Amino acid sequence: MADTENKAPESGAGIPVSWFPVPEESELPEGLRRLFSKARETVGFVPNVFRAYSFRPERLSTWFSHFKMLHEPTDNLSVAEREMIAVAVSMENGCLYCLVAHGAALREALGDPVLADRITLDYRRAGLDERRCAILDLAVKITNEPIECSPEDIEYLKGHGLTLEEVWDVIEIASMYNFTNRMSLACGKIPNEEYHALAR
Amino acid sequence: MADTENKAPESGAGIPVSWFPVPEESELPEGLRRLFSKARETVGFVPNVFRAYSFRPERLSTWFSHFKMLHEPTDNLSVAEREMIAVAVSMENGCLYCLVAHGAALREALGDPVLADRITLDYRRAGLDERRCAILDLAVKITNEPIECSPEDIEYLKGHGLTLEEVWDVIEIASMYNFTNRMSLACGKIPNEEYHALAR
Amino acid sequence: MADTENKAPESGAGIPVSWFPVPEESELPEGLRRLFSKARETVGFVPNVFRAYSFRPERLSTWFSHFKMLHEPTDNLSVAEREMIAVAVSMENGCLYCLVAHGAALREALGDPVLADRITLDYRRAGLDERRCAILDLAVKITNEPIECSPEDIEYLKGHGLTLEEVWDVIEIASMYNFTNRMSLACGKIPNEEYHALAR
Amino acid sequence: MADTENKAPESGAGIPVSWFPVPEESELPEGLRRLFSKARETVGFVPNVFRAYSFRPERLSTWFSHFKMLHEPTDNLSVAEREMIAVAVSMENGCLYCLVAHGAALREALGDPVLADRITLDYRRAGLDERRCAILDLAVKITNEPIECSPEDIEYLKGHGLTLEEVWDVIEIASMYNFTNRMSLACGKIPNEEYHALAR
Amino acid sequence: MADTENKAPESGAGIPVSWFPVPEESELPEGLRRLFSKARETVGFVPNVFRAYSFRPERLSTWFSHFKMLHEPTDNLSVAEREMIAVAVSMENGCLYCLVAHGAALREALGDPVLADRITLDYRRAGLDERRCAILDLAVKITNEPIECSPEDIEYLKGHGLTLEEVWDVIEIASMYNFTNRMSLACGKIPNEEYHALAR
Amino acid sequence: MADTENKAPESGAGIPVSWFPVPEESELPEGLRRLFSKARETVGFVPNVFRAYSFRPERLSTWFSHFKMLHEPTDNLSVAEREMIAVAVSMENGCLYCLVAHGAALREALGDPVLADRITLDYRRAGLDERRCAILDLAVKITNEPIECSPEDIEYLKGHGLTLEEVWDVIEIASMYNFTNRMSLACGKIPNEEYHALAR
Repeated sequence: MADTENKAPESGAGIPVSWFPVPEESELPEGLRRLFSKARETVGFVPNVFRAYSFRPERLSTWFSHFKMLHEPTDNLSVAEREMIAVAVSMENGCLYCLVAHGAALREALGDPVLADRITLDYRRAGLDERRCAILDLAVKITNEPIECSPEDIEYLKGHGLTLEEVWDVIEIASMYNFTNRMSLACGKIPNEEYHALAR
Repeated sequence: MADTENKAPESGAGIPVSWFPVPEESELPEGLRRLFSKARETVGFVPNVFRAYSFRPERLSTWFSHFKMLHEPTDNLSVAEREMIAVAVSMENGCLYCLVAHGAALREALGDPVLADRITLDYRRAGLDERRCAILDLAVKITNEPIECSPEDIEYLKGHGLTLEEVWDVIEIASMYNFTNRMSLACGKIPNEEYHALAR
Repeated sequence: MADTENKAPESGAGIPVSWFPVPEESELPEGLRRLFSKARETVGFVPNVFRAYSFRPERLSTWFSHFKMLHEPTDNLSVAEREMIAVAVSMENGCLYCLVAHGAALREALGDPVLADRITLDYRRAGLDERRCAILDLAVKITNEPIECSPEDIEYLKGHGLTLEEVWDVIEIASMYNFTNRMSLACGKIPNEEYHALAR
Repeated sequence: MADTENKAPESGAGIPVSWFPVPEESELPEGLRRLFSKARETVGFVPNVFRAYSFRPERLSTWFSHFKMLHEPTDNLSVAEREMIAVAVSMENGCLYCLVAHGAALREALGDPVLADRITLDYRRAGLDERRCAILDLAVKITNEPIECSPEDIEYLKGHGLTLEEVWDVIEIASMYNFTNRMSLACGKIPNEEYHALAR
Repeated sequence: MADTENKAPESGAGIPVSWFPVPEESELPEGLRRLFSKARETVGFVPNVFRAYSFRPERLSTWFSHFKMLHEPTDNLSVAEREMIAVAVSMENGCLYCLVAHGAALREALGDPVLADRITLDYRRAGLDERRCAILDLAVKITNEPIECSPEDIEYLKGHGLTLEEVWDVIEIASMYNFTNRMSLACGKIPNEEYHALAR
Repeated sequence: MADTENKAPESGAGIPVSWFPVPEESELPEGLRRLFSKARETVGFVPNVFRAYSFRPERLSTWFSHFKMLHEPTDNLSVAEREMIAVAVSMENGCLYCLVAHGAALREALGDPVLADRITLDYRRAGLDERRCAILDLAVKITNEPIECSPEDIEYLKGHGLTLEEVWDVIEIASMYNFTNRMSLACGKIPNEEYHALAR
């Protein structure tokens, strides 16, 4: 497969965006080229996770179909709160890519860069209310000791006003970032330089 | 949403298949009803992961589109070897559902129930060759200390005859079971009784 | 010592029963030959732990005298419940030998292979009542963080109807499997193939 | 059973020798009374582990038959080296009883209280030669990550001059202290005051 | 002591700078008032660690005398490299205060906010050369498993061109941040809002 | 620098007092020579931590100025209780130097060698009252999981009669021993032989 011969392009500071080869955008299926164009319009650049994951184009397409569903806001679990779960899990796993990219997304969603950075680095000391702490505590439990999860965890979040579907979302988002963190760490995905200055 | 009122059906021995409600199969979208029918034809029953996950029907559909791609065999990473990664990761996380369901799948794929059980419980002592041990060692590293992954891990598996795409598959399968293990553990998914006697 | 020159016999699938040499049965002291014969009568084969441990015949005899006492049932701690402690501890330590051998013993004791497998792999999700969960929780605490044990743990089990002698038994059985798990893992003891199909 | 009504006697400083009741010596079987007498002759007092364990007299007898075998010296694994394994394992588990009692035994065996204390608290910085470090490293591996043990560990100790029987002894002693540490911690056994001043 | 009645002032976003009371600056000893003034001149504000620590004025003075020595650059251990040790240790401990404050200091010292953020969140994937990785690997080892340190660690850094004094500095800085991280986490010290936008 | 050429002197049993060179006492600044003299008068010898740390004379001076403040007794936190924090933290980190030196200091402060040794090795089983256990539990939490600290920990100790300043002292002493433990472990500091027999 010719495109696997490509070297990964740089992510800035001389570091390639991935330890795996990255195909030319022009060689990608139309759906992905459209995804990349849309990203350029909305965020201003193509996130490196797309470029790195495009080594396996169909995998990227199907994974992203699933992934994006999880960030759709609902009444009691906002866009920002879904990003909070992303960064809380990523901090436990120490995932550079997700901390930088979703740290930026959280700054944007909250419109408060200081609060967003505090949540990213330690949600416990960020002054969050009890409801948000309960959500993030469960995300961390799912990450670090999932075998300890119990029906009581579900009841506890329901008691903080989440619907059953929203409790499920907390679980599915936390589980998803345990997937993406590992993909990013084991594939050596490096976040775009642009993220660092976004929404500051 | 009416179907969330349903109680989860039993998985045998008086335990429900999930801590979340499970909709009636008749209420599910056509695509999922077809998936359930096909499962009845091929394995003889509907895996409880489908029933439990159908609480969120679209999520099930998109996740499964991604998941099934990862079990497609290639020249140097067989159906059985992909199941080995599933069970090695699931043993690290202590995931009842995946150990039972993929333990059965591994017995079937290998046609050797003793070897399959040994790999499921401790691949290190199962008499595997160096290539398979290298694959499973990386799957465990991705599970337990993903931050320690490095380009050398990729080179090491290439040195054992895997293509770059297959090394990526090892990473993506290991990462995926870190997703499914957590979903199963935090949603209380219980494996079908039928799995225990399969392929013995 | 001539018998240390022996190679360990196979446990099936080409794997020797131990990383240490295994003496010929005919060379063993009479007491052990009698033990082996009795095992053939009751379980139908000589458990590999006997063959592997017979590298040090007197050790095997004295250890087994102690070990077998711990599986004698009492009013509130049945044969099955003692095996549950064995598998719960062995799952924490990841001991292939004990998970296979005592998983089989638990299937036999319960007469319910599905329930037995569930307890072996994750007693927390096996639908056990509060009393049995309390027993296994203490066994796991003794295994993973024994320094955290306190007089309250003893009171708690007494509150679930165990006598003081039975609470002691929970502690002694859990401690014993922390011995046998390590012996099996560090000596490379491999369970007999026959166990896998027993009591299914 | 009348003797279970007894309170445990004090171990000094107002702390009982066990969280379980301790029977009167006069009520014990003859074999144990002889064991206690012999201990008074040789060490000058009855070790609290005997008194605490005598809550279950037959257990004490059979366990001790096994335990004492493991401290018999051989050509390349002396009395002192066997005590070193005891304290290295006990330090990993944080076992008060065994650190005090076997710390004293090690002082006696070495005739060098400073070296003995150093080994007890951190054998890595005690100036031991490579052979002894290799023995204690394996004991610690068996304690903390037994699943990582491999045939290479056995070869490594053989390469330092131990016979196969002596390598087995290292494994069996390390495993045994993982039993006794847990028994002592979970039963609340407190070491005799006399140990602290012994062999200084 | 009257000043202990003071409430801690806000650090922004409604969070107090400390879980302990914070005295008025005017009540502090002259030396500290001078330190605060100098901070206003050089960084533009008084770091919250000074305000929080001034609950115990003499402690702050003596600790800071020690602390500031450790950031004096030498030929082979620059200001930036000393800050790298600070953030690498703080990431292991998850210390919000130090990650924010020393993340800013590292951005300033490097004049490269992207590289600085990458090092702060995961130095392993920041494209550092072998010498800097060796320094940070030792800092992490000192943080997570100090008992495993050995004379070889010292030789290894000397082999990368550090003097013995500079190797000592790596150790002393890493140890110091294990002090400051714990002080910040256990006293609830919150970093100034200003740090987040500094040197971007 | 000539004095770095010096070999470290022996600490007894052929082990040098440090993995770093140790300057001649005569070459040290006057302040340190006075400190050494005073130590000879009060404890009878120069603690090896002084000799080892004198490789960096100014560091030793400033660190010790800070360190000694933390051991000044107050109404509700005595000299002995401050030493208890030292040994509880040092046991968690497995620090040979601090366990030996502060174990001796605790024996002296308590005038009860048995109680002091018990606290040093496992304060949980030493028969301490609830107040002292609460203090040491917080010291251990600060050591092992500082991110879990919360304002409730402060309230809890206040509820046991400590002033806010004394709660701060518990935190600062526990944090300080996380510094000194790492310095001692990573620099290979070995305690003086004299400590082992002190105050017995």
